[in-house]
Formats: sequence, structure tokens, C-alpha cells
Amino acid sequence: MGGDFGPHSTIPASVLCLEQDDNLSIVLFGDEKVLSPFLVGLSSKISSRLSVVHCTQSVEMSDRPSYALRNKPDSSMRRALESLRDGKVEACVSSGSTGALMGLGCYLLKTSPGIDRPAICTAIPTVTGYSYLLDLGANVDTNSDSLYQFAMMGSVLASAVDGVASPKVALLNIGEEEVKGNEQVKLAAALLSQESMINYVGYVEGDNLYSGSADVIVCDGFVGNIALKTSEGVVKFISHLGRELFGSGVTSKLLAVAAKPLFDRLEKRINPQNHNGAYFLGLQGVVVKSHGNASAEGFAQAIHRTTECVRTNMISLLDEQLELLAR
Amino acid sequence: MGGDFGPHSTIPASVLCLEQDDNLSIVLFGDEKVLSPFLVGLSSKISSRLSVVHCTQSVEMSDRPSYALRNKPDSSMRRALESLRDGKVEACVSSGSTGALMGLGCYLLKTSPGIDRPAICTAIPTVTGYSYLLDLGANVDTNSDSLYQFAMMGSVLASAVDGVASPKVALLNIGEEEVKGNEQVKLAAALLSQESMINYVGYVEGDNLYSGSADVIVCDGFVGNIALKTSEGVVKFISHLGRELFGSGVTSKLLAVAAKPLFDRLEKRINPQNHNGAYFLGLQGVVVKSHGNASAEGFAQAIHRTTECVRTNMISLLDEQLELLAR
Repeated sequence: MGGDFGPHSTIPASVLCLEQDDNLSIVLFGDEKVLSPFLVGLSSKISSRLSVVHCTQSVEMSDRPSYALRNKPDSSMRRALESLRDGKVEACVSSGSTGALMGLGCYLLKTSPGIDRPAICTAIPTVTGYSYLLDLGANVDTNSDSLYQFAMMGSVLASAVDGVASPKVALLNIGEEEVKGNEQVKLAAALLSQESMINYVGYVEGDNLYSGSADVIVCDGFVGNIALKTSEGVVKFISHLGRELFGSGVTSKLLAVAAKPLFDRLEKRINPQNHNGAYFLGLQGVVVKSHGNASAEGFAQAIHRTTECVRTNMISLLDEQLELLAR
Repeated sequence: MGGDFGPHSTIPASVLCLEQDDNLSIVLFGDEKVLSPFLVGLSSKISSRLSVVHCTQSVEMSDRPSYALRNKPDSSMRRALESLRDGKVEACVSSGSTGALMGLGCYLLKTSPGIDRPAICTAIPTVTGYSYLLDLGANVDTNSDSLYQFAMMGSVLASAVDGVASPKVALLNIGEEEVKGNEQVKLAAALLSQESMINYVGYVEGDNLYSGSADVIVCDGFVGNIALKTSEGVVKFISHLGRELFGSGVTSKLLAVAAKPLFDRLEKRINPQNHNGAYFLGLQGVVVKSHGNASAEGFAQAIHRTTECVRTNMISLLDEQLELLAR
């Protein structure tokens, strides 16, 4: 039970989701002593579907993945993934260390057919709806083969789960011209241009990330993480400037009050908490990564994404398509 | 005379700057036939300080830098840089291809003491003022030595030109913990930690890019370009959503009108056009890169940055400090 807010976020989120969904059961992996106080006073309707598996260790954000793998056999993250591997649960959601989740996930669940390394993928809001962006930090220093595999997985996700016919797939780059970019991106572009099963539409630049020009946008994990977190930084900065401007002077304050419902709707649309929950694509099991600083509302959103994955049978559909592509 | 809008942007910008600054002279490099019509009817006070050097070639955005170097001896970009090298002008501003400007700049002007490759650096607005961000696209696949050199240049820029005592220097990374990031960033962190002449403050993540937590933020050019352009994308997206919300319904429209002065101030603070003009640090000459899609107002901003560089004697100060550091 990780993340910046620990059970303060994950347990209210779990209760909320259990209240909304009678078919859902949740198993919490963590230190029983820490978790128990949060479970006191729950109705039997909830508590009957919310159980705890006691774990004596937890993966810290500063732990190297290899350290977590070798030295923490009883970590909550590992125990949860083992439970998924053994079919005791159908999916796993975590707000812990991305690197450790990737390392343990690959080790315990294995990767999908033809996939060397899984990618983290999330839906980002756009002018026209949403686009899938991957990778978001599972891989740094990604080579062109991996970028090609990410493109395949993103394309399959958009077509299999969202029913998009021939999803438009783009590579995130620093220019739209063919000569721009680093070697990995240029090589991946060459590979994708030759792949008839992927509707590759070329490069997209950062300023068009939210324009909806592609259904799937592919990049190295370092780059994707910077793009996504910088977007959060811009939203925080604009909110700060807005508060400064609308908070000074009587007229401005009145305007701010009058416009609040509109600002709230705007905030709802762009708040990362409302888009929380990223898929670990390429693992043989549903693993969803929540943002480390997710609020209870944000973590609930990640749980929703997770249950959606299970209900749409996403992993099986993905594996079927990947096998077809790999032939 | 490049950029998306060519002389439609650069000439009105030049005229504006010449009107504001009696000590300024501007030389336009480009096709005389294209430029002349824009110069008709200017007052002698302006036209006496605005001359044209006719060039028969121009570097296209799709030209590889090596192609521009070998096959375009009479390109406007090359001629302008040669003029700078020969001391006929004191600075050069261009909205043409970044790669070609980098290649030609290195070839014609040479790099500063101890600098392997120049970096593109701009001031980004933050909660507390502004921070310098570099590199923004001059280098892709940057190694740790280059990141270290970018840190030095950024630090010297902030102290020499802005008078910041002991500027805080950070590396842009995908986590704040020591184990996070790719090899280049981790190695650069190790180098910077040992450098007593740089006030290295550790990693900064994308979500803190605009928080003002560091005076200088250093990254690979691919990453910096994505961060900056994605920020533009977020601003565009929020503007779009704002127009959608404030443009629907009578109350919303009235609110939008009432709040317009505030929105205008907000827009002014974050509009990239108002922060246009990036320094090419590490070249032996003042070279400023304008955004390709700069408006006349935006290009004027880049000219202002350029004259500021000349007046503060930035390159000499930078070279002096770099020599001290290199000892």
C-alpha cells in the first residue's frame, strides 16, 4: 500500500469503489497494523468484500528494482503480483515505485507474446476526446524495436478496447520533418512506415500532444514521463497565476466567484487526478499504476480503470492481436 | 529570413525594434526581391538603419545541416553568421532550422573554451520569476559530459547576466530519488555533485518545471524540446477548453467579457511569443533562435533578447567564467 498518502488515499478510494460496484472485491496488501485502524466501522456490505493480506515488507521509492526483487520477498507489491500470477485476484493496482512494479511484474507475470519490455500507457484528454500516450517511464533509453512494440500495443489497445477502426499511431518527436529527432525515433519511424497492420501517421510534436491528431502517441519512457509531468506543472502554474490575478481586487474576486462553476468544469477536465491510472501494457496480467500523489478520488479513478481492463478482457484481446502481428 | 511567416513577421518586428531603439541597426539577409516590397514607404529614420544583404539561397526546414553546410554557400543563414564572424554585425537572430543554425554556427564561429557542443537556452516563466532551461533541441542523445557543460553555461549565464549569486542548478529527471533516470542523467548528477563551482541542487521533475525551485534546469535537447513544446500544447488545450466553456450560454459569455482583462494578463504571462528568443550558449558569438512560428510581436521579443545579450556583453562574460572553470 504505497504512494505519498498511503492508506489515507487507498482505503477511502477502495470503500468508494466497493460502494459503487457490488460485483467488486478488493484485497489490500500491506501492514495489517497500519491498515486495520482505517477499516474500523465499515458496514458489513463493504467489509465482506474488503480483505487484508498482511505483508511484513514494503518497496520504498528509493529501492532499486533489483534490490526489491532480491531482498523483499514479503513486500506488499510482490505479494499482490504473486496473487495475480496465481489467479487469486484478477488485477493489481499500485501507486508504488514504477521501476519496482516493472521489475517485479516482468519477473512474476512474464511479458506478452513478442514483447521485450512492457510500457506504461495512459489516456490523455485532448480537444477531440483522448489519446493513448506510451511509454510513461517504464523504460528509459528505449531502442527503436521497443518503440515499434509500444506502437503495436497502443494500436491494439485502441482498436480492441475502444473499438477504433485503424487507430492513428504517431511518434512523439522534436520536429515534423523526416530528418528531425534522435536515432531511435528515426529508426522506429522507418519500421512503422513498413508495417501494414499499423496506421502510422508520422511524427507529432509536443505542442500537438493534446490536439487529438493521433489515437496513439509513442515515445521513450523518459520523454513520456517528462511530457506528462510537465503538463501537470503547466496546469499548476496556470492555476497559481489564476489565483493571483483573480484574488486581487474586489472586482476580480467577484468575477472569480461568479466564474467558479466554469473553472470547476475546466479543472475537472484537465486535473490529472481525474485521468489517474496507467496501464502496464505487455505484461500477462492486468497491472495498473496509480500516480504516487493520488488523492482518494484519484486512486478511485485508478481502480475504475483496473476493473474496466478486467471487464473488457483487455489482456486476452491484446495477446491475441499481438500473436497475429507476430506471425 | 526564415520562419513560418518569413518577412511578414521579421520585417514588422525589425521596424518596431528600430522605432524603439535609436542605437540599433538591423541587416536583413535574404532574397532582395522578396524583401524589397516590405521596405517600401518606411521613414528615413528607420530605413537608414535597415539594410538588406541579398542572398540567393535559403536553408529549408527539411535540409539536413550537413547538406546546408556543403551545398548552400550563399544561404541567408550562412551569410548572416559569416557577417557575425567577420565582425560586421554584433549578433545574429534566426527563426530558421535549429539543426542548420547549430551546424553552421559551430563551423563558422567555433565553440567557447571547454565546450564541445553549444546548447539552446531560454528563460521560462515561473511562480517566482523565471528559470533558464537548456538544452532545447540543439543536441539529441546528450552524454553526461555535455549535460555537465550545459550546467556550467547555465550557471554562468544566471550569475554573470542576471547577477544571481550562486545560482541553483538542477537536472530534469523522471524522479527525485537518486536511483531514478537514465544513465546520462545519473552520471551528470555524479559529476555535478563533485563540482564546487556549481550550486547543484539535485533533480527536478516535470511537474516542478515552473515552480521556480532552480535558477537553471538542465536536460538533453530532445527532452527539453518536448518539455517546452508540450507546455505550449497544454496552454493551447486549456485555451480551447476555456473558449468552449466561456462561449456557451449567456451568463458564461458575459463572464468571459467581464473577465477579459484578467485573461489577457494571464495570457500575456504564459504566451510563448512573449518569451520568444533562445540563446545559443557555447558559441563564440551572440546567436539567438526565434521560434519558427513567431508572430511579428514574438520576433521583436527575440530581437530584444539579442540586443540585451550584446549590451550585457554576455559572451565575453561567459567565456571568462568558462575559462576559470576549465582551469
